[in-house]
Amino acid sequence: MNKSKTRYEIYTFGLKSVLGLFEKRPEAIRYLVFVEELSPKLGAICSFLAKNKKAYKQLSNNELNEMAGYKEHGGVIAVAVPPSVRKPNYADFTRWQTERSPLLMLESFTSGRALGSLLQAAHSLGMKRVLLVHPKDQAHFSDEAFLSAEGAHEHLEFYEVEAASSLFKKLKDKYISIVGAPSGIGGRNLNFAKPINAPGRPFMLLINGSEAGPASRTLGQAEYVIQIPGITQGNAQLKPDILGSILLAWLQSRRKL
Amino acid sequence: MNKSKTRYEIYTFGLKSVLGLFEKRPEAIRYLVFVEELSPKLGAICSFLAKNKKAYKQLSNNELNEMAGYKEHGGVIAVAVPPSVRKPNYADFTRWQTERSPLLMLESFTSGRALGSLLQAAHSLGMKRVLLVHPKDQAHFSDEAFLSAEGAHEHLEFYEVEAASSLFKKLKDKYISIVGAPSGIGGRNLNFAKPINAPGRPFMLLINGSEAGPASRTLGQAEYVIQIPGITQGNAQLKPDILGSILLAWLQSRRKL
Repeated sequence: MNKSKTRYEIYTFGLKSVLGLFEKRPEAIRYLVFVEELSPKLGAICSFLAKNKKAYKQLSNNELNEMAGYKEHGGVIAVAVPPSVRKPNYADFTRWQTERSPLLMLESFTSGRALGSLLQAAHSLGMKRVLLVHPKDQAHFSDEAFLSAEGAHEHLEFYEVEAASSLFKKLKDKYISIVGAPSGIGGRNLNFAKPINAPGRPFMLLINGSEAGPASRTLGQAEYVIQIPGITQGNAQLKPDILGSILLAWLQSRRKL
Repeated sequence: MNKSKTRYEIYTFGLKSVLGLFEKRPEAIRYLVFVEELSPKLGAICSFLAKNKKAYKQLSNNELNEMAGYKEHGGVIAVAVPPSVRKPNYADFTRWQTERSPLLMLESFTSGRALGSLLQAAHSLGMKRVLLVHPKDQAHFSDEAFLSAEGAHEHLEFYEVEAASSLFKKLKDKYISIVGAPSGIGGRNLNFAKPINAPGRPFMLLINGSEAGPASRTLGQAEYVIQIPGITQGNAQLKPDILGSILLAWLQSRRKL
């Protein structure tokens, strides 16, 4: 088996994630390795891979550790083509608005782990679509992100977009734009008791993954800049995955999932 | 320099964390390594260490990478004695109640990373005290946890407690007990608009870090079992650090920090 891995492949770990991947995108799986104990549960995948002339192999737990560089692989690893990232057009945004589909927009994530953690929470909280601002610049729509997402990325659709500020402006009649901000940059404090009302307009929430936070141009174009009150000294800022999850939980709390 | 590290030592990474450690517990630092560029900012610590016959050394970035097993060390690593974990007595709880000090209680964390991430968020959200249920059994009040906490643990006090259920019962006149629960185990949905009122009684929030969630005995003794509505199929459950952070942000939102 060829263990070399290009940047066009990702690892998916653990039985649930792998079964989820198989259910959603069976053709994306390039090869599969697993410990003996899990083989009874992977029969359908192995048959499918064999039929499609793709490899699978039983390995020891130590071999999996080595391959993953990580012990929490749950005994099974699929190497797969990453989810596709499409470019949306205006009609897509119109359709999503009609579906009342909120959007999570991510920019400048410097940590794949934080990105993946937020994707996992976003899926858990019922989000379906993620817009990545300049995904190539972010350079961490990566293995580490997919690992940390624990399979959630198989349930999300990804889109590539350009600057958040211009998107906010272009879509202001369709979407209510909200920026989750580090505390201390002048946003309003989150008021849990007071939901944001924007009849007919779903929300579009931007989370910036960098320490500096969103650009002032982006803040200027957003309808709401919201911060979570907290300690701002030292490095006590909320991490972007935590900030994003708190805001999503609140924004999604009145929707039926 | 002796690089061997016992389980009684932790690593603290990054300039802010190290400066925070030096401010809070200078005597806890055993040795310090850093890249040349940071040396002007570490003069006070180095003088202190020299005076106390402890070592410090300038290393290359690669040497730091190797020592940390991790690239995001920010150019400086302090090896230090971990924060102490004390056993509280009844008078402590009485005093904390008088101070209106809420408590975060953590049990069964299987991931040091999630534990550390929640500690970081807890500090950011103004928490001061953390109760660890059977910390030795948790076995991950660990290096990985401290790494992920990014120095927040230097601002928190840690206490060792026994079963949550008996603590809830014993302290019910002093604290309002709340359990953050995975969705699907029968808790009430979080209603952001409706705060929990318990005049004179601060909250005591339990977050369980395991996949199984809290024991039914614990749920039975809690005044509130609260879940975040979301997807429950597959492994879409909210992770404990995310669940805990959402509940803390909500519970703390009416307090002045």
